[in-house]
Amino acid sequence: MLRLSHLFVRTLRDDPSDAEVPSHRLLVRAGYIRRAAPGGYTWLPLGWRVLRKVENIVREEMDAIGAQEVHFPALLPRDVYEATGRWTEYGDNLFRLVDRKGADYLLGPTHEEMFTLLVKDLYSSYKDLPVSLYQIQTKYRDEARPRAGLLRGREFLMKDSYSFDIDDAGLAKSYTDHRDAYERIFTRLGLPYVIVKAMSGAMGGSMSEEFLAPIEVGEDTFVRCTSCDYAANTEAVATGALAPDTSEHPATSTLSTPNCPTIASLVEYLNTNAPRSDRTWNASDTLKNVVLTLRNPDGTTSALVVGVPGDREVDIKRIEAQVSPAEVEPMDDATFAKNPGLVRGYIGPQVLGADSATGIRYMLDPSVVPGSAWVTGANQKDTHVLYLVNGRDFTADGTIEAVEVAAGDPCPNCGKALEIARGIEIGHVFQLGRKYADKLGLSVLDQNGKQVVVTMGSYGVGVSRAVASIAEAFHDDIGLKWPRAISPVDVHIVVTGKNGDDITVAGEQLAKHLEAQGLDVILDDRNGVSPGVKFKDAELMGIPTIVVVGKSLADGNVEVRDRHAGTNEAIPVASAVQHVVSLVRS
Amino acid sequence: MLRLSHLFVRTLRDDPSDAEVPSHRLLVRAGYIRRAAPGGYTWLPLGWRVLRKVENIVREEMDAIGAQEVHFPALLPRDVYEATGRWTEYGDNLFRLVDRKGADYLLGPTHEEMFTLLVKDLYSSYKDLPVSLYQIQTKYRDEARPRAGLLRGREFLMKDSYSFDIDDAGLAKSYTDHRDAYERIFTRLGLPYVIVKAMSGAMGGSMSEEFLAPIEVGEDTFVRCTSCDYAANTEAVATGALAPDTSEHPATSTLSTPNCPTIASLVEYLNTNAPRSDRTWNASDTLKNVVLTLRNPDGTTSALVVGVPGDREVDIKRIEAQVSPAEVEPMDDATFAKNPGLVRGYIGPQVLGADSATGIRYMLDPSVVPGSAWVTGANQKDTHVLYLVNGRDFTADGTIEAVEVAAGDPCPNCGKALEIARGIEIGHVFQLGRKYADKLGLSVLDQNGKQVVVTMGSYGVGVSRAVASIAEAFHDDIGLKWPRAISPVDVHIVVTGKNGDDITVAGEQLAKHLEAQGLDVILDDRNGVSPGVKFKDAELMGIPTIVVVGKSLADGNVEVRDRHAGTNEAIPVASAVQHVVSLVRS
Repeated sequence: MLRLSHLFVRTLRDDPSDAEVPSHRLLVRAGYIRRAAPGGYTWLPLGWRVLRKVENIVREEMDAIGAQEVHFPALLPRDVYEATGRWTEYGDNLFRLVDRKGADYLLGPTHEEMFTLLVKDLYSSYKDLPVSLYQIQTKYRDEARPRAGLLRGREFLMKDSYSFDIDDAGLAKSYTDHRDAYERIFTRLGLPYVIVKAMSGAMGGSMSEEFLAPIEVGEDTFVRCTSCDYAANTEAVATGALAPDTSEHPATSTLSTPNCPTIASLVEYLNTNAPRSDRTWNASDTLKNVVLTLRNPDGTTSALVVGVPGDREVDIKRIEAQVSPAEVEPMDDATFAKNPGLVRGYIGPQVLGADSATGIRYMLDPSVVPGSAWVTGANQKDTHVLYLVNGRDFTADGTIEAVEVAAGDPCPNCGKALEIARGIEIGHVFQLGRKYADKLGLSVLDQNGKQVVVTMGSYGVGVSRAVASIAEAFHDDIGLKWPRAISPVDVHIVVTGKNGDDITVAGEQLAKHLEAQGLDVILDDRNGVSPGVKFKDAELMGIPTIVVVGKSLADGNVEVRDRHAGTNEAIPVASAVQHVVSLVRS
Repeated sequence: MLRLSHLFVRTLRDDPSDAEVPSHRLLVRAGYIRRAAPGGYTWLPLGWRVLRKVENIVREEMDAIGAQEVHFPALLPRDVYEATGRWTEYGDNLFRLVDRKGADYLLGPTHEEMFTLLVKDLYSSYKDLPVSLYQIQTKYRDEARPRAGLLRGREFLMKDSYSFDIDDAGLAKSYTDHRDAYERIFTRLGLPYVIVKAMSGAMGGSMSEEFLAPIEVGEDTFVRCTSCDYAANTEAVATGALAPDTSEHPATSTLSTPNCPTIASLVEYLNTNAPRSDRTWNASDTLKNVVLTLRNPDGTTSALVVGVPGDREVDIKRIEAQVSPAEVEPMDDATFAKNPGLVRGYIGPQVLGADSATGIRYMLDPSVVPGSAWVTGANQKDTHVLYLVNGRDFTADGTIEAVEVAAGDPCPNCGKALEIARGIEIGHVFQLGRKYADKLGLSVLDQNGKQVVVTMGSYGVGVSRAVASIAEAFHDDIGLKWPRAISPVDVHIVVTGKNGDDITVAGEQLAKHLEAQGLDVILDDRNGVSPGVKFKDAELMGIPTIVVVGKSLADGNVEVRDRHAGTNEAIPVASAVQHVVSLVRS
């Protein structure tokens, strides 16, 4: 029994000043967590109970698909991450340190290398496969902007698992097993989720999906189709191969366009000074060439220009996902100045591309389809070209998904309108393939005695992040509302009496009887604390069932409050135990 | 059910080349752990089960004394360790790192500061106390010489708890509660232990005891009385205040002592050239002055000379425990050369002491009692002085426990002979007192509304080290022998048949029936592995009960082997389940 007179918890009336999102605010205010360092949190007794319940559900579902639990150190030697290139690729996101002997170490962000080497160490035959291993372990990432409490910390608890198979069919099955297990995990946690297609980030590989909790404060933006079941992280939306525009276009012409600093002013100028016969000019007729700098993990940089329709914005995160591990940023003025071939505001494709005068790499968003005609810069101040046709008058070095996906864009699957939503990444399943096995030499003998490189999957669940996600999904203005499966206890008993009176005695008895039935109980037995404060604390802490033993005891009743439904029911004392047990077990 | 055909484990026939002690050798060979980094180990599925069982026993006993579980980050900001001086005091033993913003961090070796600040954060009144908090968490220490596998690693699992009381009486109770809990923990683990008085090391404070598993490969040397119940870490043995020698001594004389490079040769020379009338000279009549360098955590050094009887060795670790956090080493030749007042081999107290010509600090072992007379160096080559009397002819700056304690030395408690043994530190209980609360400003209002500094205890159990200690205590040449309480499973079934035959079917059934009774089972169902190899693996893995389903099945029997007793019993198949269940539950 957790007696609030002794439980190590203090609720706060005020929001912590650094709390940006409800889960952070409420978990701190209700006494579940406490900030210990930038992006590092201490779990107080109530929070620790929730975390362990989440952890156990994850463990049970991993065990159920035959995955085996192991546990690696977090402090890892540099050499294995060097072998795969991740020592460099992770850039500033990796916590690095040097030991007393001068050797380089890191704090593990994920453990692909270690798992790969462990399997290599123990296994050597196709007969040993498939095998799936997992750990539930503290992970470290030196986030540039730790924020939102547990949602993006620098030290956090993750379940990471890895599957090892002899062939692609095996990997596909391991992947499906994990995906199914994740669906069961989030269902048991009571956490709503959407499965979206994803890019792989720094990890390389192929098939990849994210589990997102569709919550507005989430950092991930995803699209879903309003008609079919397509859903994808915006970074991963493939607009697909569009049909070329086969209409005939006029020959290219050059137009003096003074005082047209913006696309809107250019379009207005065109409609006045070079009107089309068929329709008016639109922003979508213009081709905007955006100059970017790619920064590689080793510090080297290169220039990249992307061409997108003038009515669309460039999405740097999407581009980044495709050029990872390089980081992408707008080109700064100093670098711009070093490229005199680029006339700011009037850049056109004629001077772009690996084989061009500038030699600058040039990529087109797929919406700039072959055969389409564009108004774009003439590489000369106050001058544009009209009817510059992709494939006829210019070429690029390739395509890259570059525009910000917008609500109403066509679904790549069915062509109907997409909608945009935000979510928190709570899980990730990922067909790594042979990348790590290749680099670290993990192969086994197949049935014919031939060495075969093993194919791998990697699968993650953010355990501490799940706690915060659940708090985001289940709360109101006055506090948390835990789903039963992970509530720190089953029932919260508020006793409004004073030491030794009938009410207090009845509350103590009820608590003991509920415990005897196997329920976990918080008993608010604090003396000298007003009923109002006790009710507020109970609502803030968010145990799904609150039992008030108070004045109505005179009528032989207790009040049973449902924190989710907001209902309040008078129940005879005599049947209170049975009633509460049936609520908890339902 | 853990099927060996699928369990992620490989036993090794040969000892790993880096394994110095049986626990390391056998835990690696039996597939419980695997080296991942210097002083860092990966837990494989079997080892992980053992670790978690130990962890759960620790947790249950902590909960039973009302301690509350929390969980801190391991990555901690420098400032709080700076406030207590430990950022510097820990010296090279601390893993330090710098984040992307240039801020200093450390990996927590223990969490006194964080717990103190947490209680300060939440509590403010005497009514809130006492409280005991604990965590079971990964700890980091950059050991100079990680060794012996899990016994001295750089990343390891510890339970650390801290008590907070308003006064000394409260601390004494919290201390006793923890001490009692530790006795229950080690008893449940089946691990033999001795409780010894201890020094506090870098942590400061007063009353302190260690729980040692009395095992020969341990790094700790302790003494225990052959008569009373006194036991102490050798670093903490107090030889106590001895009675001064009140006999009259002759006046000091100087003697030329050529060719006496050793104490033995000096004693021989004395007995020949300056014989005593009452008895012969002994090595214990000589005073040996040993020159040491103290190295402070900030890198500064100072000289220290300790005077000990010539028949005794100096124990640098004992001295170190008294001058901590300074480290102690013999003075090197270069430093020696810079002190011309010190005539190597002939150093006498006349030139030593803070107020002396050299100004070098001089401390005496308590066995050099006031009033005792000594033969010692005359600070001149080939010359000694006789009858130099402590207090009459020289003084020191103080006393320090400096001699290596030897078997037969008198017990400080009862005067009878001490014996010397070795052990592994598995637990530590420690009255920290007000040191941390003072430095970090943890005080509460007492009943009179006055601020009172809180007094603290700190208590540790090495959880991963306990696993290795148990392996040290319970093994033989061929493998491990787990106590039931922490064995990875209850029973190991060896099936000597081939796929699908009667023996295999019977083994499968037995395993299923035992599982239905709630037992955890390893089933060695590997096809194509000889019975001999299976037996060897079972013995190596060390499950206490091994059931062999083999040839004797023809007679209606299975064999039940007791790994501890080494016995082997034929049991009718029909009663095998009942028999094994009763063994496990006994």
